[in-house]
Amino acid sequence: MRPIDALVAALPPGRVVTDPDVADSYARDRTFVEPGKPLGVVLAATREDVVTTMRWASEHRVPVVPRGAGTGLAGAATATDGAVVLSLARMTAIRELSPADEIAVVEPGVITADLDRAAREHGLMYAPDPSSYEISTIGGNLATNAGGLRCVKYGVTRDSALGLEVVLADGRVLNTGRRTMKGVTGYDLTGLFVGSEGTLGVITAATVRLRQAPAQPPATFAAEFGSLREAGAAVAAIMAAGCQPSLMELMDRATLEAIDDWRNIGLEPGTDAMLIGQSDASDSQAVVERMEALCVENGASFVAVSSSPQEAEELIGVRRMAYHAGERLGACLVEDVCVPRSALPEMIGAVEAAAAAHGAKILTVAHAGDGNLHPVFIFEHGLTEPPANVWAAADEVFTRALELGGTLTGEHGVGLLKQRWLALEAGPVTQEVQQGIKAVFDPLGILNPGKAI
Amino acid sequence: MRPIDALVAALPPGRVVTDPDVADSYARDRTFVEPGKPLGVVLAATREDVVTTMRWASEHRVPVVPRGAGTGLAGAATATDGAVVLSLARMTAIRELSPADEIAVVEPGVITADLDRAAREHGLMYAPDPSSYEISTIGGNLATNAGGLRCVKYGVTRDSALGLEVVLADGRVLNTGRRTMKGVTGYDLTGLFVGSEGTLGVITAATVRLRQAPAQPPATFAAEFGSLREAGAAVAAIMAAGCQPSLMELMDRATLEAIDDWRNIGLEPGTDAMLIGQSDASDSQAVVERMEALCVENGASFVAVSSSPQEAEELIGVRRMAYHAGERLGACLVEDVCVPRSALPEMIGAVEAAAAAHGAKILTVAHAGDGNLHPVFIFEHGLTEPPANVWAAADEVFTRALELGGTLTGEHGVGLLKQRWLALEAGPVTQEVQQGIKAVFDPLGILNPGKAI
Repeated sequence: MRPIDALVAALPPGRVVTDPDVADSYARDRTFVEPGKPLGVVLAATREDVVTTMRWASEHRVPVVPRGAGTGLAGAATATDGAVVLSLARMTAIRELSPADEIAVVEPGVITADLDRAAREHGLMYAPDPSSYEISTIGGNLATNAGGLRCVKYGVTRDSALGLEVVLADGRVLNTGRRTMKGVTGYDLTGLFVGSEGTLGVITAATVRLRQAPAQPPATFAAEFGSLREAGAAVAAIMAAGCQPSLMELMDRATLEAIDDWRNIGLEPGTDAMLIGQSDASDSQAVVERMEALCVENGASFVAVSSSPQEAEELIGVRRMAYHAGERLGACLVEDVCVPRSALPEMIGAVEAAAAAHGAKILTVAHAGDGNLHPVFIFEHGLTEPPANVWAAADEVFTRALELGGTLTGEHGVGLLKQRWLALEAGPVTQEVQQGIKAVFDPLGILNPGKAI
Repeated sequence: MRPIDALVAALPPGRVVTDPDVADSYARDRTFVEPGKPLGVVLAATREDVVTTMRWASEHRVPVVPRGAGTGLAGAATATDGAVVLSLARMTAIRELSPADEIAVVEPGVITADLDRAAREHGLMYAPDPSSYEISTIGGNLATNAGGLRCVKYGVTRDSALGLEVVLADGRVLNTGRRTMKGVTGYDLTGLFVGSEGTLGVITAATVRLRQAPAQPPATFAAEFGSLREAGAAVAAIMAAGCQPSLMELMDRATLEAIDDWRNIGLEPGTDAMLIGQSDASDSQAVVERMEALCVENGASFVAVSSSPQEAEELIGVRRMAYHAGERLGACLVEDVCVPRSALPEMIGAVEAAAAAHGAKILTVAHAGDGNLHPVFIFEHGLTEPPANVWAAADEVFTRALELGGTLTGEHGVGLLKQRWLALEAGPVTQEVQQGIKAVFDPLGILNPGKAI
């Protein structure tokens, strides 16, 4: 009997897919990396399925690649040759939602926006909102420690994770963390699993923190600037004034041109940057007017402030067009560096210089309040991976981010994509320690080998 | 040559204290636990001193007990026989403070309130504020993941730690985390060290997040209730209304009586609980008035709202009297359970029942917004440790907290004090995994053995 047949026999009927074409559709995320050929795909419906799969994998030394919806942008869910893909997408129960305690207990396959909607029925929200949140899962968000637009105010996925149920490599079940807002019993195992890209265990449930949803719709502004430097100064002034924006997004000239070519937003020749900000505070209109004044003080050529939720949506809508505008131009490698906030204009300048030096087309949008940039490298549709000049430009972008005190990845993760730059940031002691931790949880090296660290 | 002489020779002059009386003064924190007899105390002034000490300790297999100011309440800094105490209290440099990036790089001996004051010179604040913050150190706060009054709004110490410089057991230096607000390169080693009570490494510097200080002084209310149930309902209503208090403290009848006996606050016979709340929002006065109305709706017999910073200080002052009022009555074992917020009134009721059942005097104050209670067990002055009836009552409190979905310790840590209850919360898989992680960092078992896990 082949090992995979033993797995089929051990699981309830219909859980394992071995058809190569179907399996291939579970082998990729949204990264330009050619996957390997997996033995098959487990469509886990229960924690017990995961336990059975991991026991089998340990017995047969078969690598396991856990995945949620496959919306990742770093290749953490890319299948490898001879591995079994373990999909958690069918575990979609919201086991509990407690408005009084502002927590929910959810399975990993719950779509992020579905949890947010369930919370809003009780006046609450689930704050982390990666751009993919209508299609990504909580499990994938946890595995990559996903960020989003609101995290400038509410923090990243880690900041909403209170406890986890995890199946370890050998099939044992570990419960980390707690249901309480605070707690310091033992080491922070919850934090260790969040962002570990399935290399330490398989998350089968999470206790997450909910927050009170703002009672009124947010107020929004959009400001145009003649230079990145002025836009950066406006960001600094807004943060220094304690405005606590719930969203603060910056787009460069290349992005604005791509949007204007598509939807004609009336882009002026002298506009080099647009800043879009939002407040969801109880005095949001007053806060947004303060942010508007700070934009003007710092050289904005034009500022629009929403006077209704519809207008707010229109202003944010420009930002939402950015990726689609990029996809019209070609295939997109969406990158993800983060720098100290004061280095934001310099970093965007470095991206533009790298684009010019290597003949690469790059559109940059940034979660400006966090210093988190997404340079979108455009290349020819139909290529299976980015060409050499794109990688050369990306290399320059990563190197410059590190020189500016930044990091290779603000919210997408290391996956496979950043492996070749990892040593530049992590250093040998960190890498050795991380390998040691990995070995504690996964002595056989079967959990998503080659990812994250 | 004795091992300690080799250490004296390896360090600059004056760094090692071996006088038993002086060493004894570094052997305790604020916990009622009799310490062992250390070989000596290292008064580290530089990272290099720590490296030298750890290399020596590894070579000679001598346990090392790191400490900050010794203000801990769980015995994490209690010296053990034959150990060397490693004091970081002299490493007091604020190496960097960047208002633009809202970060500071600090040494572990910096007093928490000093960092907050340094930040406020730039309109910023360091948010975590354990009650000991005028005498505790950042290093100790990190080692225990200290909480505080403001963490209902701003989170605990973990939430302000971006990166650490750590000396490992063998003297190697590990840099964790980053200078940016977001970042997901590799495992969350920063979170692993925070709260690990010196059992994984010695923190020699930290990059911490600062926040904009509110532009105006906070507004404050104090409300009196005839029952804990009503006070708990008011807490729930205030949180559910999205008021985001920056402080929300609850005191029970026993605490109020102790304060009234001392300072005559005019306690009414029917008052069973007092709730004190604060808002530091830009519309703080309006928010506090909303909180006042919610207290009245939920049965408050009296509510005072501050109309000036002086009045706000007076209202908060009642809360600040609580521990001193307790200390007038006897020696104090300050406990620290945390429960889901909705269980707060039931938990306080359980504390009162335990007090009655075991003839123990217990005053309870709570960080109500977090569900974090500090039952203060009073016993006879002069005893070196709490008597049996106090431990019996404490045992009942801990057990009930766990039954209610809570945790043994919200913000003080496990140290030595909670060792005997640890297995009730952690379970065997968690304990095994934690021992495995410990062994990666400290294979010889010399770093603060017997603490935290």
